[in-house]
Amino acid sequence: MDYLRHHHPEVPVIGDAKRGDIASTAEAYAKFLFDRLGFDAVTLNPYLGSDSLTPFLERPDRGCIIVCRTSNPSADDLQTADVGGVLLWQRVLEYTADKWNSNNNCLAVIGGTRPDDLRIARQIAGKEMFFLVPGIGAQGADLEAVLAAGLTKMHNNARDRERDVENGRGEGLIINSSRAIATKPAEATKNLRDKINSLRA
Amino acid sequence: MDYLRHHHPEVPVIGDAKRGDIASTAEAYAKFLFDRLGFDAVTLNPYLGSDSLTPFLERPDRGCIIVCRTSNPSADDLQTADVGGVLLWQRVLEYTADKWNSNNNCLAVIGGTRPDDLRIARQIAGKEMFFLVPGIGAQGADLEAVLAAGLTKMHNNARDRERDVENGRGEGLIINSSRAIATKPAEATKNLRDKINSLRA
Repeated sequence: MDYLRHHHPEVPVIGDAKRGDIASTAEAYAKFLFDRLGFDAVTLNPYLGSDSLTPFLERPDRGCIIVCRTSNPSADDLQTADVGGVLLWQRVLEYTADKWNSNNNCLAVIGGTRPDDLRIARQIAGKEMFFLVPGIGAQGADLEAVLAAGLTKMHNNARDRERDVENGRGEGLIINSSRAIATKPAEATKNLRDKINSLRA
Repeated sequence: MDYLRHHHPEVPVIGDAKRGDIASTAEAYAKFLFDRLGFDAVTLNPYLGSDSLTPFLERPDRGCIIVCRTSNPSADDLQTADVGGVLLWQRVLEYTADKWNSNNNCLAVIGGTRPDDLRIARQIAGKEMFFLVPGIGAQGADLEAVLAAGLTKMHNNARDRERDVENGRGEGLIINSSRAIATKPAEATKNLRDKINSLRA
């Protein structure tokens, strides 16, 4: 973090901490991750409920990225349980987009390995919410399908779509790639960025 | 940990880490918590499912304490969702007692603030499973109710009960107290221990 802050102060840094703990411990984690380490946003595990998230949610200057739908093979053990008309991860996303988002600082983790779920997630969360999307790269998610399902909607005709991109529409996704860029990070990241932007256009 | 290992090597140490992350990260956490820091057991968050727990479960020499039912006020946000005849936390406990427990190294977090849930948990998990019970002390759980609901069952008549205690029956609970012992730890812990044992007898 010292290196990043010193050399690239303009780059937002996400701590993929997946924390979720009760009141006093959650407070200490929030202080440590936001103030001591200086992350701009962190990932949070929702299993313990609202009060485990509150010390993070109360920081309008920082992002709270709630783990809703993950990209790992066993995600379905709990996340797809039917909790009464919706699945557990969809309930978590509803909370993320609504009652946990009063400071408008919530984002959601929605794995890229299941584009259909990304489409549903966009419907639930609306156009304003950003998703952090793991699964591109080592986990094999299909980038084109991810963008088609998860980006906020753009116009269909070429000219308006171009303007959408210029105006910053067709956004809403933070595409994560970790293991796939580990060996040649600069080159691999630029390639991925270019691929994303060519698919957006 | 250095201090504990040096001065009290016979005392098992639990890391209340509540970790839950995907494969490669989970492996690194397991190595760090078990091998580098030397915890005998750690708490784990089940939201990401089996594969996030596997690197821990595969260590028969260490304890895996799955967070099932927590003692904080917002625990009901997700944990009491009806997932088809059972509540979410009960489903997690079923997995903990069954499919995640093939190395017989699983324990469960069951909060003490709701003794009725502790009774149900004992029914689901059976007599062999140990529960880590937070909520005694600062969170105000009733110690007598906790023991009555959560201990593995003992005989009703006085003589057999005494023998049960001698034989180590009427066990199965690890009673946690943190904030309530923070100021006078030795004295407060001995008092709590004596109170527990007098209630058991």
